[in-house]
Amino acid sequence: MCELMAMSARLPTDISFSFTGFIERGGNTGPHKDGFGICFYEGLGVREFKDHNPSCRSPIAQFLQNFPIKSTNVISHIRQANVGRIALENTHPFQREMCGHTWTFAHNGQMDIGNIPEPSFYKPVGQTDSEKLFCWLLGELRSNCQNNAPMKVQADLLEKHCNYINQFGVTNVLMSDGESLFVFCSTKLSWITRRAPFGKAHLKDTDITIDFSAVTTEDDIVTVIATQPLTDNETWHTMQPGESRIFELGECVRESYGPAISHPKASAAKKAI
Amino acid sequence: MCELMAMSARLPTDISFSFTGFIERGGNTGPHKDGFGICFYEGLGVREFKDHNPSCRSPIAQFLQNFPIKSTNVISHIRQANVGRIALENTHPFQREMCGHTWTFAHNGQMDIGNIPEPSFYKPVGQTDSEKLFCWLLGELRSNCQNNAPMKVQADLLEKHCNYINQFGVTNVLMSDGESLFVFCSTKLSWITRRAPFGKAHLKDTDITIDFSAVTTEDDIVTVIATQPLTDNETWHTMQPGESRIFELGECVRESYGPAISHPKASAAKKAI
Repeated sequence: MCELMAMSARLPTDISFSFTGFIERGGNTGPHKDGFGICFYEGLGVREFKDHNPSCRSPIAQFLQNFPIKSTNVISHIRQANVGRIALENTHPFQREMCGHTWTFAHNGQMDIGNIPEPSFYKPVGQTDSEKLFCWLLGELRSNCQNNAPMKVQADLLEKHCNYINQFGVTNVLMSDGESLFVFCSTKLSWITRRAPFGKAHLKDTDITIDFSAVTTEDDIVTVIATQPLTDNETWHTMQPGESRIFELGECVRESYGPAISHPKASAAKKAI
Repeated sequence: MCELMAMSARLPTDISFSFTGFIERGGNTGPHKDGFGICFYEGLGVREFKDHNPSCRSPIAQFLQNFPIKSTNVISHIRQANVGRIALENTHPFQREMCGHTWTFAHNGQMDIGNIPEPSFYKPVGQTDSEKLFCWLLGELRSNCQNNAPMKVQADLLEKHCNYINQFGVTNVLMSDGESLFVFCSTKLSWITRRAPFGKAHLKDTDITIDFSAVTTEDDIVTVIATQPLTDNETWHTMQPGESRIFELGECVRESYGPAISHPKASAAKKAI
C-alpha cells in the first residue's frame, strides 16, 4: 500500500511543515520507501518532483523542505510498491492534460488490474493499476469536460466510477484539475481545515511544532488531507469508507456517501504494519 | 527568443557539465532569464524540473548541478518570453502522453500564433505559440503512433509539418518520445557527438574544464545539441536552416534537408543581442 497527502488552500500556501512529517513515513516511521512524488499547482502550471528513492532520505525531498513552494493545490504520494516495479514511471502522482487543464492523480490501493476497464483516450506509461485507473477515469470525464463542466458537475460521474472500482479493491483517490481537489475514501483518509484564529501544531512523525499564527493571515483557509493525521495535537476528521469530498480554495464544497465496502486484505495489511 | 539544449546517449549519462554552461545563458552570459526547464527520461519515466526564475540563479538549477541525474534522453530550454506571460505554464519543455509514451517538446522561435492550425486532441494549458505547436504536431502524429510507428517512420510527417510552420516564423524544435530525439533547425542549432577516445572540454560560458576520459567508458557515445556550442575547444556541427535530424542512443540515425527560409526578424534580433 501507499500513503496520500494533499492540500487545498484559499491563498498560495507553503506545505513544507506537513511534507516534513509525511516524508518520514517513506522509509523511517512508515514502510512506504519505494519512491515519492509531489505536484504543486502554481496558476495553470504544475511543478512536479518525483524520486524512486525513499522519501525519508531523498535529496529531492530534502531540497523541497528548504525550498518552500507556495500553492493552492498540492497532491503527494509515498509508495510501497505492489503492482509495477520501483521506477520513475510507476511513481505517483500521475498527470495528463485534458481540455487545456493539467489533471493530477494519486492512489492508495490495490486491485486486480484486469478489473479496471480499458482506457480509451489516455494510456498508461508504467505498469501500475493506479495509472490505468487514472487513464480510465479521465477518459470517462473527457466528454463532460468538453462542455466545460466544472469538477462539481463531473463529481457525479467520478463518484459513481470510484464506487464501482472500489468493489474490486482498495481505491483511496486524490485527483485535481488545479481548481478543485477530489478525494475518495475507500478505507482510510483524514482531513483538517485550519483557519483563523490559528494555533500551534505538532507533527506526529518527527518532533517539530509550528505556530501557524506567525505564518498566516486572517484570510488564510487551508485544508490538509492525509491517509493518517499528520499532527498529534489537533482533531482531524476521519472519512468514512465510500465517502467522497471536493475541496476548493481550502473549503469543502461537496460531500457524498457511497456504499462502505469491506476490504479484508487491506485490514490484514494494516494489522501486519 | 530562447535557447535549446538536448542530449542523446547510448548509456545513462550525467549532463551536469553541459547544463552548468547552459544555465549561465539564463540571465548571466545570455538574456534568457524568463524561466528554464529540463526533462530527463529515466526508463519510461520522465523527471521534470521547471522554474520561472532565471536559470543562472534558480535554486532548482543549482540543486541539479549537485544532483547528477543519469539519462539517455534530455531536453532543456531557457526562456526569453515573447508570447505568454512569465509563468510556470509557459515554461518549456512541455509534455504529453501519447499511446503510452511521454513526449516532450521545446521550441525556440516566434510566430503569429494564428498560423498554427488548431490542435485536435491535445490542448495548450498556457498561452505560448510553442505549446500550441506541440499540441498540433502531436495530434497529427497520433494516428501514426496508434500503429506503433517508430519515430523514424513518423519523421516524414514531423519534417513536413516543421517545414510548413517554418514559413510563418522561427521554428527550432526539440522533441522526444524517450527513445528518439527529433531536432529541427529553422535558424540556429549545433551538435557534437563525443565517443572514445574522449578528451577534455572547456565551457564557453564559465571557466570549467572536464576530462571526459576520466568519467566515461569505451562504450559511451553521447550527442549534445544546443542553440550555440557550449564548449570553445571542440568542433561542433552547425545545422543548416531546414535541416532535421533524429538521434538515438547517442548516434544520428536520420538526416534530411528542407527549404532554408529566411527569417529577417530573427537576424535582426540576433544583431541586437
